[in-house]
Amino acid sequence: MTDSRLRGLLVPVATPFGADLEPDGDSLVAHCRWLLEHGADGLALFGTTSEANSLGVDERIRLLETVLEAGIDARRLMPGTGACALVDAAKLTGHAVAHGCGGVLMLPPFYYKAVGTPGLLDFFLALADRVGDARLRLYLYHIPQVAGVGIPRALVDALASRIPGTLAGLKDSSGDWEHTSRLLEDHPELDVFPGSETFLLDGLRHGGAGCITATGNVNPRGIRAVLDRRDEEDADALQASATAIRRAIEAYPMIPAVKALLARIHGTPGWQRVRPPLVALDEAAATPLWRDAAAAGLGVA
Amino acid sequence: MTDSRLRGLLVPVATPFGADLEPDGDSLVAHCRWLLEHGADGLALFGTTSEANSLGVDERIRLLETVLEAGIDARRLMPGTGACALVDAAKLTGHAVAHGCGGVLMLPPFYYKAVGTPGLLDFFLALADRVGDARLRLYLYHIPQVAGVGIPRALVDALASRIPGTLAGLKDSSGDWEHTSRLLEDHPELDVFPGSETFLLDGLRHGGAGCITATGNVNPRGIRAVLDRRDEEDADALQASATAIRRAIEAYPMIPAVKALLARIHGTPGWQRVRPPLVALDEAAATPLWRDAAAAGLGVA
Repeated sequence: MTDSRLRGLLVPVATPFGADLEPDGDSLVAHCRWLLEHGADGLALFGTTSEANSLGVDERIRLLETVLEAGIDARRLMPGTGACALVDAAKLTGHAVAHGCGGVLMLPPFYYKAVGTPGLLDFFLALADRVGDARLRLYLYHIPQVAGVGIPRALVDALASRIPGTLAGLKDSSGDWEHTSRLLEDHPELDVFPGSETFLLDGLRHGGAGCITATGNVNPRGIRAVLDRRDEEDADALQASATAIRRAIEAYPMIPAVKALLARIHGTPGWQRVRPPLVALDEAAATPLWRDAAAAGLGVA
Repeated sequence: MTDSRLRGLLVPVATPFGADLEPDGDSLVAHCRWLLEHGADGLALFGTTSEANSLGVDERIRLLETVLEAGIDARRLMPGTGACALVDAAKLTGHAVAHGCGGVLMLPPFYYKAVGTPGLLDFFLALADRVGDARLRLYLYHIPQVAGVGIPRALVDALASRIPGTLAGLKDSSGDWEHTSRLLEDHPELDVFPGSETFLLDGLRHGGAGCITATGNVNPRGIRAVLDRRDEEDADALQASATAIRRAIEAYPMIPAVKALLARIHGTPGWQRVRPPLVALDEAAATPLWRDAAAAGLGVA
């Protein structure tokens, strides 16, 4: 259904933690609402930026239910449901699909390295089989520099052929525009999202679906503007502005930086907390980050 | 207590799966018994070779209980309890300690890369705090080429100082003998296990605790011989023999190779099964593997 297809700006929603490092469901719901009100088309809960891999399977399930119970539209959600173990990935994915989520964004199993396309294909075919729900819309998550295991191009081709319709798209966080543009060219039936807004306008001009980006947590309006004015004269200037804000933020460790900015945007110091092994930005870093991001054009909503 | 300390040959026990890829508890127990009867001092269940990261948290808990209920001595067990999420690692570790396991072998959280010692230190201190059991004996697992995150030397030093007694040792699967020998020299209070029997005799001669090795699954007697005759004239020859068998096996993908050999050793073809993303050896590879390993001296028990 075209009208419920997830496109545009998707945000891998940062996960707030209480002083005990337990997830703070109320603050998460509030942030989800703020994102949707400020230009996000969809919410990619439980992504890399969400510290999803620092959450247990049961925590991810409970948090998704918290967001849904708060009335956020499931069709706007593309939760991350990847895991090293197929049983965990199938449990998370089945749960998300059963609750009507618009899609799921899946890392490959990322512990064993140098695995080949046949084993990854087995994994995703078994996943689709175990979920056994025609509503599954699977987006593959290619972030080899973090996961250590990428989505080989041959895997995309094989899944596009073996489970057409179920394979809905891909998030390409490789930062390799050549890779992204070849995917866009060769798989027009897939919704390909660059993993950074720096490629948003280039992507849109080549058939891209939008972007799924960490900095969407703090600059949804700036990124929304690029989407809304993609065909207007100021499109490139708006892209340059969004890119400048991104550059200011990515000079710092991304996840702690996003959360330090959210602490200021939402006026909630606790937003700075991260779970180990990540380390929160200290004030000596958070202050210049805020200054640099503001200088680059980041506004407080 | 010296008498219950885990030393010598520890085997990261391969995990057998049924045709439905569910863990086969009975075959696992039988293999554990076979290993202990053939020279293993301890069982490092749920290691890399065990495909532990292809098992869910609940599966690991149930399998440990299956092994314990079968009467295998908990003090001989050093289950892998590492996980990306602290909540999962704490759950697995607390469960193992509560059941009297001799130790736990812990990967660092391995999704987020380029994390520093402070964040890893936070993780392991929080782990020890959450487990809150003085019986915890923590062995760190350094396998950077697979996990993508190693155990920095500064982390070993910090934990040795912050939780002495609790930090009991380390498995060094880096394959870097210089790294292993420096650890042995600088931390005589820790039990350092090379991750391969190829370093067994060198390790023993420098204060090493033994080894924890994948190929212990199939050649426990050959490795036991090196341990038993470490001070005898034939020690080097026995080491050379064990090394030759290792070399024959590691010419193939290690985990599928170990399981293909176990299928023949135990006379159970199902032992060959692996969970995706790994791929079982086909007969075209398993036949020469068996021939090469036998030619190198691997005997069927």
